[in-house]
Amino acid sequence: MTRPDPSISDLVADRRPGHSLPAGLYTRADVFDADMEIFFRNHWIAVGLECDVPEPGDAYVLDIGKSSLILLRDDEGEIRVLHNVCRHRGARVLNAGNSIVSKLVCPYHQWTYELSGELMHAPHMGQGFDKSCRSLKPVKFVSVGGLVYACLSDNPPEDIDRLIETMEPRLAPYDIRNAKVAYQCDVIENGNWKLTIENNRECYHCLGNHPELCLSFIDLDFGYDPAALSQADRERADAHEARFAEVTMAWEAAGYPSAAVLPRVEGDTNFRTQRLLMNGAGESQSPDTRAACKKLLGTMTDKMLGDVHLWGHNTWNHFMADHAVIATVIPLGPDRTLVRTKWLVHKDAVEGVDYDVQHLTSVWVATTDQDAELVERSHAGVSDPAYEPGPYSEFAETELESFAGWYVRQMRVNGY
Amino acid sequence: MTRPDPSISDLVADRRPGHSLPAGLYTRADVFDADMEIFFRNHWIAVGLECDVPEPGDAYVLDIGKSSLILLRDDEGEIRVLHNVCRHRGARVLNAGNSIVSKLVCPYHQWTYELSGELMHAPHMGQGFDKSCRSLKPVKFVSVGGLVYACLSDNPPEDIDRLIETMEPRLAPYDIRNAKVAYQCDVIENGNWKLTIENNRECYHCLGNHPELCLSFIDLDFGYDPAALSQADRERADAHEARFAEVTMAWEAAGYPSAAVLPRVEGDTNFRTQRLLMNGAGESQSPDTRAACKKLLGTMTDKMLGDVHLWGHNTWNHFMADHAVIATVIPLGPDRTLVRTKWLVHKDAVEGVDYDVQHLTSVWVATTDQDAELVERSHAGVSDPAYEPGPYSEFAETELESFAGWYVRQMRVNGY
Amino acid sequence: MTRPDPSISDLVADRRPGHSLPAGLYTRADVFDADMEIFFRNHWIAVGLECDVPEPGDAYVLDIGKSSLILLRDDEGEIRVLHNVCRHRGARVLNAGNSIVSKLVCPYHQWTYELSGELMHAPHMGQGFDKSCRSLKPVKFVSVGGLVYACLSDNPPEDIDRLIETMEPRLAPYDIRNAKVAYQCDVIENGNWKLTIENNRECYHCLGNHPELCLSFIDLDFGYDPAALSQADRERADAHEARFAEVTMAWEAAGYPSAAVLPRVEGDTNFRTQRLLMNGAGESQSPDTRAACKKLLGTMTDKMLGDVHLWGHNTWNHFMADHAVIATVIPLGPDRTLVRTKWLVHKDAVEGVDYDVQHLTSVWVATTDQDAELVERSHAGVSDPAYEPGPYSEFAETELESFAGWYVRQMRVNGY
Repeated sequence: MTRPDPSISDLVADRRPGHSLPAGLYTRADVFDADMEIFFRNHWIAVGLECDVPEPGDAYVLDIGKSSLILLRDDEGEIRVLHNVCRHRGARVLNAGNSIVSKLVCPYHQWTYELSGELMHAPHMGQGFDKSCRSLKPVKFVSVGGLVYACLSDNPPEDIDRLIETMEPRLAPYDIRNAKVAYQCDVIENGNWKLTIENNRECYHCLGNHPELCLSFIDLDFGYDPAALSQADRERADAHEARFAEVTMAWEAAGYPSAAVLPRVEGDTNFRTQRLLMNGAGESQSPDTRAACKKLLGTMTDKMLGDVHLWGHNTWNHFMADHAVIATVIPLGPDRTLVRTKWLVHKDAVEGVDYDVQHLTSVWVATTDQDAELVERSHAGVSDPAYEPGPYSEFAETELESFAGWYVRQMRVNGY
Repeated sequence: MTRPDPSISDLVADRRPGHSLPAGLYTRADVFDADMEIFFRNHWIAVGLECDVPEPGDAYVLDIGKSSLILLRDDEGEIRVLHNVCRHRGARVLNAGNSIVSKLVCPYHQWTYELSGELMHAPHMGQGFDKSCRSLKPVKFVSVGGLVYACLSDNPPEDIDRLIETMEPRLAPYDIRNAKVAYQCDVIENGNWKLTIENNRECYHCLGNHPELCLSFIDLDFGYDPAALSQADRERADAHEARFAEVTMAWEAAGYPSAAVLPRVEGDTNFRTQRLLMNGAGESQSPDTRAACKKLLGTMTDKMLGDVHLWGHNTWNHFMADHAVIATVIPLGPDRTLVRTKWLVHKDAVEGVDYDVQHLTSVWVATTDQDAELVERSHAGVSDPAYEPGPYSEFAETELESFAGWYVRQMRVNGY
Repeated sequence: MTRPDPSISDLVADRRPGHSLPAGLYTRADVFDADMEIFFRNHWIAVGLECDVPEPGDAYVLDIGKSSLILLRDDEGEIRVLHNVCRHRGARVLNAGNSIVSKLVCPYHQWTYELSGELMHAPHMGQGFDKSCRSLKPVKFVSVGGLVYACLSDNPPEDIDRLIETMEPRLAPYDIRNAKVAYQCDVIENGNWKLTIENNRECYHCLGNHPELCLSFIDLDFGYDPAALSQADRERADAHEARFAEVTMAWEAAGYPSAAVLPRVEGDTNFRTQRLLMNGAGESQSPDTRAACKKLLGTMTDKMLGDVHLWGHNTWNHFMADHAVIATVIPLGPDRTLVRTKWLVHKDAVEGVDYDVQHLTSVWVATTDQDAELVERSHAGVSDPAYEPGPYSEFAETELESFAGWYVRQMRVNGY
């Protein structure tokens, strides 16, 4: 007889430090359900941007698992996040994507809500009907320098403060709250969300797979085995490290926080940030490594302030002087993951004048497609009975070890 | 750890009167399986029409879940319903849809059955092979004025008699047995079959969603909150009610049964019928509210006999002087439901002369597409963890309360 | 309440000799998982051909369930079968299908393996990293006259020797090891793999479904009820049998093993082989029953040596003087099965000169499409609650009884 599958707790206990996860943690449906509950319901997750809804009445709907959130700007100009579920018979109030609304009117029976979520009109419900307990349910959220993080649980982790305190000053000069979404694209990766994250948390694969990105990205910053380098490469690496340390000190001295803030395995809200140098002209992750938008973000005047890099829970971000790239990861199933990428420019930048969309987006469009192929290849392989967890490089995959350790700890904390 | 799902019985017990059903009853795969067993196997369900198979040798195959039924007219002109499963190795004998046959020949090994289902020839089965116990299995069915209801169980509910006694005299003048299917269309709604039924059992959503239907349909007949109407509207509503009562009495006096027969929560075979007034010219649910077929159905001569409306178990029907519309609901999965609609005219009506198909069908084609969008919107919403059952309007959603009560009672009777 | 499903053991115990299998053995997901473990993991299965990879560096990747195998020819010209799973983080090393490689380089992080599977380079893994325990895992395999059978288990059945001993001398004159794949086509049948096999193991359905094949195929050889034949047909059948016996003796006398070797219900590695006569000109399963390739296979000179027919575990094969047809069956799901068919000719045969691909392949392309339709029809029918196992013909379906008996015995041996 075929053996019964191990429990999720067994899989968690089987995880061997320094190695990729046991197969079932990437592939099983019950693990996916647990992941959605723990990591996409009880944690803070990146859901959108203040500048997704620049004007009062702008609304942006994002589906996360079976949940659907309305991110909107109310009549007072404040951000709101509401559940997209009519309080009558549950119909979706708004369709996915962007819309402009004066009230939130459910198309089914015209129940009508204020932009605050308050129910103002429910026809034919009779005199005794109490509208006050039928508001659209609110979702807890914070804005981290314009990046909107929400938590679907009633008891969100408290350490979101550390993210806010770290990032607000770093993001301030870029004024992401008032930026403009110049382009957005969705890629569905045929793999588990943790493989998407792992792929993002190392640059060991960059040189072999991302020719466009490697013009500006410096993979050395993500770790390497010194013994693997030639004498000449070793000298170049040492020179880069010295320069990077020097520039970081100069940035800090000029009032731009730049030093690395590392993820904490024991924390709930995991993130990593650092201001990185870029290669080539050093201005931007563009095809020629120069600024791809003439008008700089926020109050920026210096194109050489590098790349403020942020790895959040389900997101990666690059803030450069001329533009920012924000990717959000939304699991769709055990083996399907949505990666939504947005390119931000100054709100007054004019397409065709200040920037060309194709030029602005081409590096990360290519990179994301390449990554999708790698994640699919990984998911197929870890699903193979011949797979066994393999060793992480202690030089080039330290952030995977950090992520895997944090993941396993969170699973344990949640009873697995 | 994630909490275990409640049992089906828990979901049934959680149902709160006056409110839509707990989410799991709409969305869960195990509930769907129970529904298929209880409501589509043990109950009488609408499967087709006598006039789907007007001539001997005509056959019509309908799939219901994993079952497939052959509705056919045999050599004596009698209706038969047989299981579409060869008694040899189980192959489907006929393909889905309509065909014309002289015998039922399984294409796999040419086992050949009479139109009665009797096995007449099975090649190479040897001398001792007993054909008599290898007939195609019959399915229990009744014809209700030409509407064929079948039951896949060996112990069908007995109260089908009430449906027959009620509807035979109402349908007689329309002679549906000898009508003609002028058009048929299938729409797959991305929602649970109970959301399809709920959507059909109220007209609260009509004004906001069905502009074409509302030319002829009078949503007031399906309930409204008097206090929600303006003084003028209230007077119009009162005038309509008075007129409706008067016309109903006149129809009854002229020998046309018209009064409402209501569903019974405690019955098995649930239905509702009533002769309704139509708006505008009052003749038909057509784009101009006038008869869309010159030749009237059956023995009808008066175009002003309204709309004999029948809500059956998995079907809705409108019988008007010039044509009838018959919709059948077949669940395909927890979140997928087939709605098959047929438009019937007099069998001698000639397309292009007596009626134009586009004109005949446009109102309900549009309405069905609109309903499909609403059902999808509802299913997405009730699947959201933020959904909680909402209140039915005590004026405009009384039939939903009746349906939900009946559904819950049937689940309980079946051990949940 | 709906009844719980019977256990797999109950289904196995319910199987009634002389009858098709209980429905659940064809349709259930848990049975499919057990089948994959027992019949496609613990048994020898046909996976490819030596001539899929004629030259050193040729590689052919086949997916079986969640496994993926690399069949390749190494630098020494030897066949190897390796698991297609990188030992780092599990990525697929090669894509499905054919490729040419000098080394096996995982595209993710450029881990580089010799064609033997040995890991030769893993960048950035540090000084202490032990490459010796990180070879691509080998898969056990044998070549049966050029037909590659593999076993994914560590304890493959021992009776593969009987297949080798039987087939090597039969295949020797055809030199399949050095043939050429002239054409390959994939058909996905919407049915369980056992229905695909059952369909292949009888020719009861041929006359009614395979007009192209029946030009050369003699369905009498697969059994018939003598009493079902007319006097004239009976005389023709007797004449054929006498001639077949005589020709078989002549073939054997000329050194070509031809007599039937029958499957053994109690064996693990089940197969049947026999040299068959062909109809018409008797040379080939081609549209005109004549050789479809001018250059004959291997050392063959006589076109009238019939059809060496081999039914293996998950494969059927026809070896004729001019060409061979090899079909491999790979289950994709409970109701989806891949049938991959390859047409082989002499390696020096030139397309357009010695053979025309359309002419060479048309009979089995048509036959395979027809069979796919029959298997889909069967699967739909056995999934119907009205299905009950039906009787096999004791004349025309003896091989199905043999297969079903073997299947049930294997299930029991494995604890069901």
